[in-house]
Amino acid sequence: MVAQPSQTIGEIMVREVLYVQTGTDQEEVARIIQRYDFLAVPVVDTEQRLVGIVTVDDVIDILEQETTEDIYTLGGVQSGADNYFQTNLVTVARRRVVWLSVLLITNTATSAVIRSQQDILQQVVALAAFIPLLIGTGGNVGAQSSTVVIRGLNTDEIRIDEGLRVIRREATAGLILGLMLGVVVTVWAYVLQGNLAVAIAVGISLVAISVLASLAGSTLPFLFQLVGFDPALMSAPFITTVVDVLGVLIYLNMARFILNM
Amino acid sequence: MVAQPSQTIGEIMVREVLYVQTGTDQEEVARIIQRYDFLAVPVVDTEQRLVGIVTVDDVIDILEQETTEDIYTLGGVQSGADNYFQTNLVTVARRRVVWLSVLLITNTATSAVIRSQQDILQQVVALAAFIPLLIGTGGNVGAQSSTVVIRGLNTDEIRIDEGLRVIRREATAGLILGLMLGVVVTVWAYVLQGNLAVAIAVGISLVAISVLASLAGSTLPFLFQLVGFDPALMSAPFITTVVDVLGVLIYLNMARFILNM
Repeated sequence: MVAQPSQTIGEIMVREVLYVQTGTDQEEVARIIQRYDFLAVPVVDTEQRLVGIVTVDDVIDILEQETTEDIYTLGGVQSGADNYFQTNLVTVARRRVVWLSVLLITNTATSAVIRSQQDILQQVVALAAFIPLLIGTGGNVGAQSSTVVIRGLNTDEIRIDEGLRVIRREATAGLILGLMLGVVVTVWAYVLQGNLAVAIAVGISLVAISVLASLAGSTLPFLFQLVGFDPALMSAPFITTVVDVLGVLIYLNMARFILNM
Repeated sequence: MVAQPSQTIGEIMVREVLYVQTGTDQEEVARIIQRYDFLAVPVVDTEQRLVGIVTVDDVIDILEQETTEDIYTLGGVQSGADNYFQTNLVTVARRRVVWLSVLLITNTATSAVIRSQQDILQQVVALAAFIPLLIGTGGNVGAQSSTVVIRGLNTDEIRIDEGLRVIRREATAGLILGLMLGVVVTVWAYVLQGNLAVAIAVGISLVAISVLASLAGSTLPFLFQLVGFDPALMSAPFITTVVDVLGVLIYLNMARFILNM
């Protein structure tokens, strides 16, 4: 439109265009259009012949679909392209049971750990009351770290070579949060059970579990990204379950140490 | 470009355009451009005067930012507009501790429930080994339901008036998953502890907890949407914690019933 009437198309066209290939992943095409604020990008085949274009409104749909996939993965659900109400329940169950089974196996490890420490629970049954509180809080701290790290990796705000810096930051955040919550929990545990040794074991364990949870929540997504898996697999459900095992192990051994048993 | 040279702009322009107002939420603007595949949409002030446009490439950035907000909320993290490394750790801790404290209060309820049932744990300490497994698995089932429902509500794939249908579907999915996992867990519990009554209590509890978890995971986001809050607040961390309280209550009472105590 701004060219002179005498110019030919050949004179005004841009020769060096950014293009994508027919085999390019749709998410990558979306990122290119997003980065350069393009309205469309040409698609070429393996012999560089133009076979079509992808426009910006396709990109919005692609991004929405990819977001759903990411969010489903974060929630431990395998996604399908079909509508919610059209999927039959057997398919729904199949898409969820795989991940639940993986988590269940990790959970059986938690049972085995408690089983092996049963003598101390037998002697001080008051300890049992704080197991869900400790592993639950630890799981939440770990879920926060993994959420931030996974989203950062997915949007390229965090680069893979910044791993150690991120893990150190998250561990420090876990320590601060653990100390804040640890004080509250120690007081609460003492009020509930009236046993100071148990209350101290609970408080100290919470600090240790928080640090460990934020370490796991930030390290595991990086490791998955490094070996080429989707870091979103290391999200809340998995981190929570890993923290269960480690949390119970830390807590019962801490109690054993403090109670001198 | 396809008009006759003699036509004036006044003759070819479209008079009935879709527009947004200066006060419209950015997410809504994004949804309009996305729905109609527009390249831009005009923005008018309260007196319908054109004050600018929002283009499709702005929309992509808006959607990405909104997605990060959604994902952070799902993970129990309050989001900020700033870069990961530029935020100081005190701010990071402040953004996370509020949600952790809310969850901690719910967790103290779990401790209180176990405390009130301490007599049965004292007599059958073997029961303690399966508490994390049951509430962990229940939490995962609930997290899956809430993930699917929250995402469905956010993308308008699920409408608010379809609530009952969705809740019924999720509860059925929870039942199917509970039955599948319940069988496995009963066998595992028997192998670990060699106590059939305990194993049966664990298996039946898992079925009940799964149904309840999927009910909570699908109902709570709907309730939050109904009263005008962000349904994403009722995501994995909160559902998991609610399931902890209910799960322990179901399990220890089921055990009391089956063990005849």
